[in-house]
Parts: sequence; C-alpha cells; structure tokens
Amino acid sequence: MVDRIEDLYAVIPAGGVGSRLWPLSRADAPKFLHDLTGSGHSLLRDTWDRLEPLTGPDRIAVVTGRAHRAAVEEQLPGVPDRNVFLESEPRDSAAAIGLAAAILHRREPDVIIGSFAADHVIRVLPVFHWAVQQAVTIAREGLICTIGITPTEPSVGFGYIKKSAMLSIDGAPEGALVERFVEKPDLDTAKQYLESRDYLWNAGMFISRADVLLAEIEANNPELHAGLIELAEAWDDRDRRGPVVDRVWPKLPKIAIDYVVAEPAAEKGRLAVVPGHFDWDDVGDFASLAKLNSHGRKNDLAILGENARILSDAASGIVVSHTQRVISLIGVKDIVVVDTPDALLVTTSEHAQRVKGVVDALKLTGRGDVL
Amino acid sequence: MVDRIEDLYAVIPAGGVGSRLWPLSRADAPKFLHDLTGSGHSLLRDTWDRLEPLTGPDRIAVVTGRAHRAAVEEQLPGVPDRNVFLESEPRDSAAAIGLAAAILHRREPDVIIGSFAADHVIRVLPVFHWAVQQAVTIAREGLICTIGITPTEPSVGFGYIKKSAMLSIDGAPEGALVERFVEKPDLDTAKQYLESRDYLWNAGMFISRADVLLAEIEANNPELHAGLIELAEAWDDRDRRGPVVDRVWPKLPKIAIDYVVAEPAAEKGRLAVVPGHFDWDDVGDFASLAKLNSHGRKNDLAILGENARILSDAASGIVVSHTQRVISLIGVKDIVVVDTPDALLVTTSEHAQRVKGVVDALKLTGRGDVL
Repeated sequence: MVDRIEDLYAVIPAGGVGSRLWPLSRADAPKFLHDLTGSGHSLLRDTWDRLEPLTGPDRIAVVTGRAHRAAVEEQLPGVPDRNVFLESEPRDSAAAIGLAAAILHRREPDVIIGSFAADHVIRVLPVFHWAVQQAVTIAREGLICTIGITPTEPSVGFGYIKKSAMLSIDGAPEGALVERFVEKPDLDTAKQYLESRDYLWNAGMFISRADVLLAEIEANNPELHAGLIELAEAWDDRDRRGPVVDRVWPKLPKIAIDYVVAEPAAEKGRLAVVPGHFDWDDVGDFASLAKLNSHGRKNDLAILGENARILSDAASGIVVSHTQRVISLIGVKDIVVVDTPDALLVTTSEHAQRVKGVVDALKLTGRGDVL
Repeated sequence: MVDRIEDLYAVIPAGGVGSRLWPLSRADAPKFLHDLTGSGHSLLRDTWDRLEPLTGPDRIAVVTGRAHRAAVEEQLPGVPDRNVFLESEPRDSAAAIGLAAAILHRREPDVIIGSFAADHVIRVLPVFHWAVQQAVTIAREGLICTIGITPTEPSVGFGYIKKSAMLSIDGAPEGALVERFVEKPDLDTAKQYLESRDYLWNAGMFISRADVLLAEIEANNPELHAGLIELAEAWDDRDRRGPVVDRVWPKLPKIAIDYVVAEPAAEKGRLAVVPGHFDWDDVGDFASLAKLNSHGRKNDLAILGENARILSDAASGIVVSHTQRVISLIGVKDIVVVDTPDALLVTTSEHAQRVKGVVDALKLTGRGDVL
C-alpha cells in the first residue's frame, strides 16, 4: 500500500476522441471510455484506479464534455459530483487543466494538482506512484514538474523531454530540470536519444501547485487566465455557474497546455522532470493497440471484444469486434480489422497512422454519421 | 441474331453453393443467384440470357434444389413451370443432368440436350453460340460433345481436356476427338499445355443426344440409370411424381457426370470437343472474382455491392459490400473483404482458395448459422 499524499488533488482531463482509433473511438464513445487492454475496465477507470491510492476518492477531479457526463459517472461511481467539471464545448488542454487548477485553488489555496490523461495505459503501479511522490515533493518547492517516461526503444511516435541538471531535492532523488521539449524525431535521432539517456518520452503529465500553474498561465496568456479566474469564482455557486460558463467558456483561447505552461516554464528553468520507469503507452493508433494486446508476441492475433467470434488461419495483428458477426481472417499479416455496427476498417499496422485521414475524409464527404 | 437450334434443349444445373465464395455465397444464397459481374443480373439469369437466343424460352430446363425454387422463378420469369426440375436433396451432377436427360428424352425422343453451369461467366456471345452450334452438329452424329475453352494463360486453377484427331464433320470444322481429361496441373505443366495448343480448359459443358447420354450412364452406372428412368416415367404425371421422387431420388448414386459420362466416353473415343474462343471464368474464388471485376487493372479496388460506401486509400483487391456500413481500406494490397450482415471475411487474393477451409471449420465448430 502506498501512502496518501494529503495535499495532492488529481485531475483527469477526459477529452480527446482518439481519431486514429476510429471506428472504435467516436465522438460519442471516445477512447477513454473503451477497454483497450482487456483489463475489463475502461482506460478512464484504470486511470482512476491508479490515482485513488494516492489521493483517495474525494480528491480526484475529472474534466470532460457535457455529453460524456453520464458515461463518466457510470465508470467512476466514487467521484463526487462537485469534482466533475463539465465543458460546454472543447477548448483544448490549457483551458481544461487551467479550469481545474482555478477551481481547486479557490477551494484550497495550497493545493497541489497532478494532471494525468484519461486515455493512457500505465503498468507497474508502485513505480508510477514513486514517480508521482517525487514530483509532488518537487512541486512543493514551487517548480512545475512533469513525469517523463524512460524510453525502452527508439520511438518515433512520441515527443521527448531533454533533461538538464539534477535538482537534489530531498525525497526526489531523480528530479532534474528540463532543458527543452523536442518534437517526434526521426529514427536515427530517436536512436541517439535512447543511447544518451538524457531524453524521456513526454507523457503530458504535470504536477504543480495550483497557484504556480495559474501564475504561469497568467504570464503567458492573460486572457485565458482572466477567463479561468472568472469561471472559478462562480463555479461553486449553483446560481451563478451556468450563466458565467455560457458567457466565458466558449471564448477561452483554444491552446494546448504545452504552449501556455510547459514550454515557457522550461525556458525559464522552472520546469522539472522525474523519470518514470514504468510501462506506458498513449495507445495512439491501432499499431500501438496491437502491440499492447499481443504482449510482444510477433505472430499473434490480438482480439478485442467481449463476444468476438473469430476464425483465423495464418493471421496476425489485431481484430476489434464490436458486433456479433463471425469474422474470418485468412493469411493476413499485421492486419488491423475494426468491426463496428456501422463502420468497418481494414488496414495494417504500418498504415495505422493514416486512419486520421479517413476520419477527415468522412467529415468532408458528409458521412459524419459514423464518426 | 443467331438462328434457333430446333432440336436443342438447354439444361442448367443450378446446384453448387460456391463455398470458396463464402460469406457471399451461402446455402440459402448460392453463387448462381448473385450478380458477380456487375451486369445487374445474377449469374443464373446471365446463363439464361446466353442460351435463350439458341433455344427460345420454352426449351430451357433448370435443375435446382427445392429451397431455390422461388428464387429461380423470380430470376427467370420466362421459364415454364414444367421445365423446373426440383431436387429434394443434392445428388451431384450425374443425377441432376441425367434426370433432365431422362425427362426430356421421354418428352421428345430425338432431343439434343446441352448442359451449361448456372454460375459461370461467359463473354462474347456470338463466339459462344458458334461453339454450341458446332457441338450440336457433332452431337447429332451420336457423339457426346464438350466445349473446351481456349486457354489464354497457364492456369493452374482449371482441369484440362486433351484433344486428339480432328473430326471433319460438316458444320463443325473445329470439332476434334478428346484423348483424355487431366487434373489441375502445376505451373510448368500448365505452361507446356498453353504452348502445345492441344489442351483446352474443361468448363463442364456437355452437348449430346439425350438417348446417347442415357446409354452412356447405363453402361457405366446401371443403378443410376434405372433410377433416372423410373423418375422420368413418373415425372410428368402429377399424382405419381411425388411418391417416386421421395422413394428413388434420395437413393441415387452421388457421383459427378465426369466419371459416369465424360471420362468413360473419352476412353471409348465417343467424346468430342469444340474449342470455345470466348472469355470464360468459373469464378471459383475471390481472386478470380477480383480479376473479373478489375478488368485486368492491377492496382484497382474492385467494388461489388449496390449500396457500397467505400473509402479507400492505397488499397487494391476486391471488396464486396452487402451491408450499409462504411468500409474503409487503407494501405492493403490484393485484399479481399467480404462484408455481410452476419459474417465478415478478410483475406488476400493469394489465400482465396483457403476460404473453403473456413467453411469446413465453421461447420465443425457448430457455427453453421452463417453458412
């Protein structure tokens, strides 16, 4: 059992649809509501279960779209009503995480918030918890801290965080300053990163005192900050919240937290990183999903779907079965088959990144009914 | 316009399910009821339309299973009731064609019957008609005549007919005796066959005087012959047919016409062949179906299905859409996707022959509901 961290509040932004996982992920059934690991639970629920030992059930907040309220509450029966922050429309991650920071800071001025995506997969929990404990220790010192994943291969699918000097803060022996963020590299560069041991995968986790985070937002985007403060002041007043949300939220700048908080803080030497030595995946596409579910066995066919009726002969890859249909796969290697009631996808691991293009094409050609 | 052949009766055995075209072809929707060429008509109807100019609508008989009666009559509104010969259960091709021969011989002792599969594709009709005309001319001389397709490539998917001496019969300048039948060859042998010009593809077409065909059956399988004669005697008597069919048909020897008629006749020098210089395909599997529908264009995606909603990106092969679903194909080459309400098949042209194995496996595992 891990000890609770009394001043920590976990924030789970549950927003992205996961277009590259279409037709499994949809506007009305986004990635975080799916069981992508065969755990029997949605990614959102798995995220909750990872955080709850650190915070207790009353100190986890979820930021999600109004359309997903019922699904989120069904997945997380323990979440207090007042900790579900509903967006009337998507305004990107700075608004979502900033809203949580502003509300929680108003409720509890010294609170430390940790933001963890609702749709990532993490295994080996004690190692995850140890990383969070170190990050909180660093955050208490007034730095913003991220957790960067120790690379296990030269991935070209993730962004990287370059470490600089070690911090030597008591209770956070692995903490270091962040020199800079780097975009997804090519394979040769990724290999150099892996060898150098100075680069970690950017998993988008941020741990910070709420006031520090808000100050960073204020410094870099005063308009966004002002809106968030106005929202937070009205939020816990049942009569005032609605009108303020309707007026303020739709006008908030739409921007990722990386640009408003992480990168500027890194430039100023105010961003720290703790390495996470745990298994992590953002399940960005079906190739990643196939890998995750084949447990590394190369010629396997991973099968997702409770009532899957699959007949395969010399097939490998992944099949997602969300219908009752018999699916027969013969002699197809590294295949991706996603079978849903109104849409079917057939591709290969190699082309999994191109699924987003299909989603865009469907939008353009007026077939949004299946998105 | 081609001249009618007054003494010819066409027989269309409409029996086989076409297992290698599962899940498109089913027990209740066999291959011959599908439009596999995009002609807008079923293969059965196309077969009728090819024969009708030679015989007129009143001289075409169809031998089919009781379960297909309604579908056959819907496809062929011009077929006289008395020319639909219903099998109470499948007894293979010798029984099916033999039954037609026996009934028609009883109705018209000098009749010549020509048997043409219900599920083959033939193009360039005047050339087909010319081949039939020659075959009938030869049949009138008391020989059994087949039409062998002039090979256009070294196919390993068809059986072959080896020609011997030319016949020099007036009106059938291309007729020759058949030396023997040969099974599907390997590629080297097929190449030799193609070069030699002595080998034709066996398309299973037989043209013969009914009495000659029946004599051949009698000589090689007296039991089958006796049963057919008994059936034929009772057939056109409304009261007698039912009980005789119930008693005799289920006990008829189950054997292909090749073994009871074609091969023995060839051995005795009683089998002739006329070369057919027309486009022909038995559409034996999805590779063949893909080829047929791509019109030889190699990187094309052939699409079958009236309401197909296909979105493809760098995909080739064939997709058969029998649902309303959006089907998205990305980066899959020579793919075969067959989408039906209760079963989905994903394979490649290369593995198309293995579809039959899936059908067998489904039978064995008690999933016959989708067959």
